[in-house]
Amino acid sequence: MSAVKIISSKRSGRSLDSLAWHEFAVGAADGSWAESQLAAMLMAIALVGMDVAETGWLVEAMAGTGSQISPERFARPAVDKHSTGGVGDKASLVVAPLAAACGLDVPMISGRGLGHTGGTLDKLEAIPGFRVELSIDEMVAVVAEAGCVICGASREIAPADRVLYALRDATATVDSIPLICSSILSKKLAEGISGLVLDVKCGSGAVFSEHRDSERLARTLVSSGLAAGLPTVAVLSDMTSPLGRTVGTANELFEAVACLKGDGPGDLRALSLELVSEMLVAGGVCDSASSGWEVAVRALDAGAAYERLERMVVAQGGDARVLTDRHRLLGDSKQLVVRASVGGWVGGLDALKIGRAAAELGASRSSTGTVVDGSAGVRIVSRVGSEVSAGDAVLELRSADRLRLERAESLAMSAIEIVDAPGVLRELVLGRIDASNLDESNRDPSELDESNR
Amino acid sequence: MSAVKIISSKRSGRSLDSLAWHEFAVGAADGSWAESQLAAMLMAIALVGMDVAETGWLVEAMAGTGSQISPERFARPAVDKHSTGGVGDKASLVVAPLAAACGLDVPMISGRGLGHTGGTLDKLEAIPGFRVELSIDEMVAVVAEAGCVICGASREIAPADRVLYALRDATATVDSIPLICSSILSKKLAEGISGLVLDVKCGSGAVFSEHRDSERLARTLVSSGLAAGLPTVAVLSDMTSPLGRTVGTANELFEAVACLKGDGPGDLRALSLELVSEMLVAGGVCDSASSGWEVAVRALDAGAAYERLERMVVAQGGDARVLTDRHRLLGDSKQLVVRASVGGWVGGLDALKIGRAAAELGASRSSTGTVVDGSAGVRIVSRVGSEVSAGDAVLELRSADRLRLERAESLAMSAIEIVDAPGVLRELVLGRIDASNLDESNRDPSELDESNR
Repeated sequence: MSAVKIISSKRSGRSLDSLAWHEFAVGAADGSWAESQLAAMLMAIALVGMDVAETGWLVEAMAGTGSQISPERFARPAVDKHSTGGVGDKASLVVAPLAAACGLDVPMISGRGLGHTGGTLDKLEAIPGFRVELSIDEMVAVVAEAGCVICGASREIAPADRVLYALRDATATVDSIPLICSSILSKKLAEGISGLVLDVKCGSGAVFSEHRDSERLARTLVSSGLAAGLPTVAVLSDMTSPLGRTVGTANELFEAVACLKGDGPGDLRALSLELVSEMLVAGGVCDSASSGWEVAVRALDAGAAYERLERMVVAQGGDARVLTDRHRLLGDSKQLVVRASVGGWVGGLDALKIGRAAAELGASRSSTGTVVDGSAGVRIVSRVGSEVSAGDAVLELRSADRLRLERAESLAMSAIEIVDAPGVLRELVLGRIDASNLDESNRDPSELDESNR
Repeated sequence: MSAVKIISSKRSGRSLDSLAWHEFAVGAADGSWAESQLAAMLMAIALVGMDVAETGWLVEAMAGTGSQISPERFARPAVDKHSTGGVGDKASLVVAPLAAACGLDVPMISGRGLGHTGGTLDKLEAIPGFRVELSIDEMVAVVAEAGCVICGASREIAPADRVLYALRDATATVDSIPLICSSILSKKLAEGISGLVLDVKCGSGAVFSEHRDSERLARTLVSSGLAAGLPTVAVLSDMTSPLGRTVGTANELFEAVACLKGDGPGDLRALSLELVSEMLVAGGVCDSASSGWEVAVRALDAGAAYERLERMVVAQGGDARVLTDRHRLLGDSKQLVVRASVGGWVGGLDALKIGRAAAELGASRSSTGTVVDGSAGVRIVSRVGSEVSAGDAVLELRSADRLRLERAESLAMSAIEIVDAPGVLRELVLGRIDASNLDESNRDPSELDESNR
């Protein structure tokens, strides 16, 4: 089928077959479709939707445009975790070495920060010498050495995704659920893993702020992962306020190190244990999430998890000494304290606004290619639920550039909500979706149309 | 507003303001929008639709990307006709000189054939020396000389349309009603005319085969023409079978010449008179269509209309001698007669299939840039409604290339429907839409959503 016929067919609302999705993915990867045709197809998908079978086919087709790691190259069960992205979300830095310490191989392809969300690769690049660009052979070698690797998607991995991802940004089709799913899952499928645990964020700092939309994304991710032959479960987690106490590359790295040593903020520890216990069940290492939780707690408290991080850092060329020496990284950056304007309780710390403030400080990039200031970011002094008096410190801003501190101050101030009663804290884990509860009502694909835009 | 915001806004179903449409049109014309962004916007329009005000703004914005002829440059009322395209539709060749003979100036920008539809410019280019590429100054000069001009859209005219038209072809957005309207009307608005008569075709050889869709197109054309400040009326006419007896460039030219001399097929004469009488009312030359009809009949029968064509051909550099000498153009092309397989009445001659057969013979192009065979085409020997015996000639195919004749034969054969009773002939003119009957129920724009995709 020609590109025009495939676009026309999707435009008119039809479901396309696996061959058509293959042609679209190959057309993106090898340039045989014009950018205008890819863009028109993306918009048609964003408006018309894709059913589960179609999304599964697109995932497989996109993965197939590049090299895929053979599962036999891993000595142990290979399972990965992926988060849809949030503010202060350094869980990958905890989860990968922790899962490795518990008996899994974790070949994690991760991304960079853009806008208000941080990127795992940016955090690791705060370590001098750390290499995030690895070939597939290098990835496999680091996993053999450390049990885990965290790197970027090389040009070998799902090249169709690289093209489509850039076009989505320019064509206002970033938040299309089937496009999000095919982008995430195609790269994960190429990792050669036998199981995937997804952390789907929900709240102002997430892709979708509404629970309903996040759950829809989680269901589509799980169902299309399964359709592409990849056992997938999803955990829905809160992203109304940042995860942990820090936002910013080097600060987040140190917070993850603290967690891997058995310390660190409770929410980061709890979420990491939740995700790792799911991974251990998915990889067949544990029979239940609760036994997985116990195994993981022991690995944290015994230092085995931290030791895996050190091995990974060294294997990827990084200077592991900085992991235990904050000053080497943070240097003499400038600070500014944001205080409570009235007394009461901290009712909310808006994740989106804090993420934007951190980006303003230099902790993320407004467009690809910008350099990140490793020292820049936000530290939460008074967490949600704390009682504060007027004038108490709530947030601490840090940047190498004093002008950026001033620009970020009012944004950070607007993120703070002070209320006059303690209130009920929101749950961190909001739900869990797997094959068993994916689709209780057995809706047919046509009913899913609305949900798959 | 940035391109991404404008695309996003249309994607989410919102109506855009005149500034947004201006930015889109300028972005297409000057390249400040990437092709991928233009394509995404085209698909969003095709799926979400545009309301009448939006289409009017886009028409004005697209016209504004190029030069526009000032109305004062015409000595007489300037009115144009435009057809949405059909098979055997040589009415423009009759209408322009006929209207000029009756007191109007007709600065007609026309197009080339593509696929099964013929193009007025291709027919004129059958005349040795005839120039269709004219500057605006040359257009005005030919009108001053002959009262009419028929030429292509120069690079000065609505450059945004040139870009968007090419992209629509590649992105399966050709048949979007607001995009069809903005393409047609932007070029017409640039002509500096004070009135426009549209011939909206309906049937297998037209853009839309269903009456419902064609009427929707006509209503949107008239309403958005009015919104852009251009007095516009539309005539709906039949395109289930070809107009006249010939399909093919040189043959159609001769058929138009016959009509201009008071002869020629009845349907071509009737439709031309219908359209010219509307133009004469629009230009204020006549009070009513019936008096316009009388004026036009006199101009045909007195030879005044033909004389205008001759003046126009000479003014555009053409050798007018060929207009009265068929052999100079047709030469010794080969023929093949397609005969009735059974006796009965000719119940239908499918316009689409005959158009495709003519294209196969070389009378049109499969892609832009192909050379057209001037002698190639189809002549209808037995018209719809004629009684035939088995073996009687129904169609005569002509091509310079014998292989093409053979390839076109079965297609031409399949266009012929023989029935066993005479039946009722279909009406040529199916309806008329102007400001007065445009919207009897005063539907609001949201109800028009469905009709404006």
